[in-house]
Amino acid sequence: MAINPNASIEVTAFRWVPEGPRGLVKDLRVRWALEEAGLDYRVRLIGAERPAGYEMEQPFNQVPCLRDGGVQIFESGAILQYLGERSEALLPREQEARYRAIQWTYAAVNSVEPFVQFRALLNSFWAERDWATPAKPTFDELAQLRLGQLSKRLGDKPWLEDRFTIGDIMMVTVLRLAKRSGQLDAFDNLTSYVKRGEERPAFRRALADQFAAYDQNEPQGEAA
Amino acid sequence: MAINPNASIEVTAFRWVPEGPRGLVKDLRVRWALEEAGLDYRVRLIGAERPAGYEMEQPFNQVPCLRDGGVQIFESGAILQYLGERSEALLPREQEARYRAIQWTYAAVNSVEPFVQFRALLNSFWAERDWATPAKPTFDELAQLRLGQLSKRLGDKPWLEDRFTIGDIMMVTVLRLAKRSGQLDAFDNLTSYVKRGEERPAFRRALADQFAAYDQNEPQGEAA
Repeated sequence: MAINPNASIEVTAFRWVPEGPRGLVKDLRVRWALEEAGLDYRVRLIGAERPAGYEMEQPFNQVPCLRDGGVQIFESGAILQYLGERSEALLPREQEARYRAIQWTYAAVNSVEPFVQFRALLNSFWAERDWATPAKPTFDELAQLRLGQLSKRLGDKPWLEDRFTIGDIMMVTVLRLAKRSGQLDAFDNLTSYVKRGEERPAFRRALADQFAAYDQNEPQGEAA
Repeated sequence: MAINPNASIEVTAFRWVPEGPRGLVKDLRVRWALEEAGLDYRVRLIGAERPAGYEMEQPFNQVPCLRDGGVQIFESGAILQYLGERSEALLPREQEARYRAIQWTYAAVNSVEPFVQFRALLNSFWAERDWATPAKPTFDELAQLRLGQLSKRLGDKPWLEDRFTIGDIMMVTVLRLAKRSGQLDAFDNLTSYVKRGEERPAFRRALADQFAAYDQNEPQGEAA
């Protein structure tokens, strides 16, 4: 067993969950990767009452988070990649194979999980909870919760970290979806953050080029 | 303008889309990153009738895909990371900052996008489409579509690529959600794939450790 209270790598997990979500909580992904790699790690168990300041570790109030020396990150996908760079058992070193593995990591969380998770949440995670009316949170309520957490984390910073990165490219383009639906109306700082991204010359060129193709072509089988 | 028909980097995009999704199609993320980095690239436009064999490039029939020499990948997140490693303008080189940027890239697609995309799909992408009854596809129908595409791509291979990687750890744990909901019943190869993952000794240790914490602790504020 690779659990070792003196290990450098620390993973957060829930101390207890009801039957419904057992076996589905996302620290499993990280534990599995650590076991595959044979890396020592310690587990920090947290309860329904999160430790003070936990929102700085995980803005969405979830698990897992990873700490290893100066590296402190959340998101199971990012953690798997971090561990993959520690162990070739998890991630090939050859560039083409490495990116195909990273591609599948994103595909799992972006192209498959969104389409299966709500059914699982309704059937398992939320099945035993005593929700007020309406019986389950709506997708719009969930969106407001997540966006509120993100808004709090962003605060008055221009970008998510101390400089612009691919994380901002991804977050701004995701938030443009939310803006189009009116879901950002309550969050002035997220609205400004999107605007800040959209005002970058690189964004404007990219958007103009995308639209130029649509303007130059006619529908051919695409529903008009 | 960085679009150059002789560039090594190729990105796929749609030649035409209706008003609804304009400005939201995901090749925008990659175009934006390329413009930020000042990298030359060429755009391969594809229509509603996808090119022969496109499913080998993009199993979910979407854009963008990237080609650059021997690297051929899909998923906007993986592509942003690939470009980030080409340009420090996109991704810091210092390890702690690098992983925080990667963390936000995953957070955008895994912790925010799923909660806002269905509202956007209902309002924009699908608003103009002439759907048969029911008027919009249900989440379960969308799940079956995606899982069918994944099933076809996996075929009779043991893992998504020619060896086990973090991509399999992520995909197997995501498919365990789907299995719990009965969404894998029609896909024998995905069911076997999940079982193959669950039979790995590392998975079994990880799952046992996760459950051991629950068994050793009592609920404290968590709804039982």
